[in-house]
Amino acid sequence: MAAAPRTEADLIAWIRGRLGAARSVPVGPGDDAAVVRPRPGSDILVTVDACLEGRHFVLGGPGPGAATPRLAGRKLLARNLSDIAAMAGVPTFAVVSMTLRRDAPPRVAMGMFIGINALAREYGVALVGGDISAWDHPFALALTLLGETRGLRPVRRGGTRPGHRLFVTGALGGSILGRHLRFTPRVHFARALAARYRVGAMIDVSDGFLRDLGHLARESGVAAHVDLATLPVSRDARRLARMTGRAPLDHALADGEDHELIFTLPPGEAKRFAADRRLARAATLVGDIRAGRGLFSKTPRGPEPLREQGYDHLVV
Amino acid sequence: MAAAPRTEADLIAWIRGRLGAARSVPVGPGDDAAVVRPRPGSDILVTVDACLEGRHFVLGGPGPGAATPRLAGRKLLARNLSDIAAMAGVPTFAVVSMTLRRDAPPRVAMGMFIGINALAREYGVALVGGDISAWDHPFALALTLLGETRGLRPVRRGGTRPGHRLFVTGALGGSILGRHLRFTPRVHFARALAARYRVGAMIDVSDGFLRDLGHLARESGVAAHVDLATLPVSRDARRLARMTGRAPLDHALADGEDHELIFTLPPGEAKRFAADRRLARAATLVGDIRAGRGLFSKTPRGPEPLREQGYDHLVV
Repeated sequence: MAAAPRTEADLIAWIRGRLGAARSVPVGPGDDAAVVRPRPGSDILVTVDACLEGRHFVLGGPGPGAATPRLAGRKLLARNLSDIAAMAGVPTFAVVSMTLRRDAPPRVAMGMFIGINALAREYGVALVGGDISAWDHPFALALTLLGETRGLRPVRRGGTRPGHRLFVTGALGGSILGRHLRFTPRVHFARALAARYRVGAMIDVSDGFLRDLGHLARESGVAAHVDLATLPVSRDARRLARMTGRAPLDHALADGEDHELIFTLPPGEAKRFAADRRLARAATLVGDIRAGRGLFSKTPRGPEPLREQGYDHLVV
Repeated sequence: MAAAPRTEADLIAWIRGRLGAARSVPVGPGDDAAVVRPRPGSDILVTVDACLEGRHFVLGGPGPGAATPRLAGRKLLARNLSDIAAMAGVPTFAVVSMTLRRDAPPRVAMGMFIGINALAREYGVALVGGDISAWDHPFALALTLLGETRGLRPVRRGGTRPGHRLFVTGALGGSILGRHLRFTPRVHFARALAARYRVGAMIDVSDGFLRDLGHLARESGVAAHVDLATLPVSRDARRLARMTGRAPLDHALADGEDHELIFTLPPGEAKRFAADRRLARAATLVGDIRAGRGLFSKTPRGPEPLREQGYDHLVV
């Protein structure tokens, strides 16, 4: 590596040297705005998410949730990829706003950029621009990711109906032990799912399974009934439960930042899906959608209300 | 106004209630990502800029640069509008990431949103999504603005050639006295200019006239020669000069956040422009482009090098 960048101009030059050109990017970083060329006929998806030092990542330190700069950058893009996945879109272009902590050495910002860029290449995302500033407070990163629909209807939160079956990908809970930095955004799964099945509704689990399921149920005007015995509880949730004294299921229900996908399928589609060798193993049937409002646990005594718990950014 | 929002969900609901629907926005705020529909055949412009409390704005206080929350929000969008203007684009869609200072009352965030939204309506921009979080540090806002080319080639920084004439809009310097919060982004001017004239290069003055002119000259591989006597020095620059003891011209050359446009025209086009009753009065001829590298002042003794001065976010 050459000498560390000392000025904004140096850092931007360093970054520009690491970006590839793309035919779909007529003007990349270094002008007042980037120019990108979406595929003709595609609607554009737009999402933005932040990563704040001390909140979404802690640099260094001994804990299992401690991040390197690369992992912090990776997480910033991964969170946004998960949002595009939840709409069944193809991620395409990103711009990033990096507010740097002034006392951090330049390699920290460089590491963050490397983390973003490596994941961007993996998912075919072109990093087309950004903004850099510095202050005497923690790192504040925000990334805006564009995506394209490319022939598939975006899957909304509000599209599920009574009778639909409820699924979730992966396993839930305990992501704070490290998975929140390393999770796989379900971009390819979501795209394949929406290409083959009529998906009712879909949402990514960022604020906790119950809270995000609550969003989906509310937007759809329905009730969601969950068979808690079938919920895929992650090994991390079990490990974390030994540390917190809470039940592993609690962690699976309420922990944030799983970035798995909750989705629903009409009954016939759900049957077809169960027999899908390529996709079915990535998701678990955990309940169904019924008329009414709210979240319920299926019990031998009938449905019992579930309290919507999870993460509210202004309250917690 | 109803009761102040206490949770993220409340605040988002309050914001959603203030946003209009648009035919070009199939999915607005409230899903995992927004869906927007650009005009067919248009390339997409993308830019991002941050506004940081204590750096780009100070809330309250007695100084002339003190901002209300509305002005802080206004500035956040205005900076991005200026970037789209500098490419001769039409601004279209925006997403905003708001990181709130936890001890600030909800009306501060609401005021910021109102400031963004009012200017957005003025420029036909649809606010289609965002992300809200809170922490124990100053407000950190970042906004990503999309635009469309709509039949005009984007005007780059690198397109000017020896012989072109050099112009700047408005008047320069002293924006810290308040104009940095209230400036008019030159969106309509830039669009009209690029529709009628073959513009060589264009850039907006965010880091100071000389620094941004330096960017333009460097990207174009040319030298810029400025007749300092013709530079439009703002009344604010004169007022500020009385406070700082520096020359008004120094402020016009080096102060940041003017958000005027520097642009160049080939000689024939410049002549035509000078006779343009609608546009010419908005800009001043301040020099020309010559072969070579760097920035020069025209003097009776010939060209004298100008030091590129202004704002580097990591150094100052």
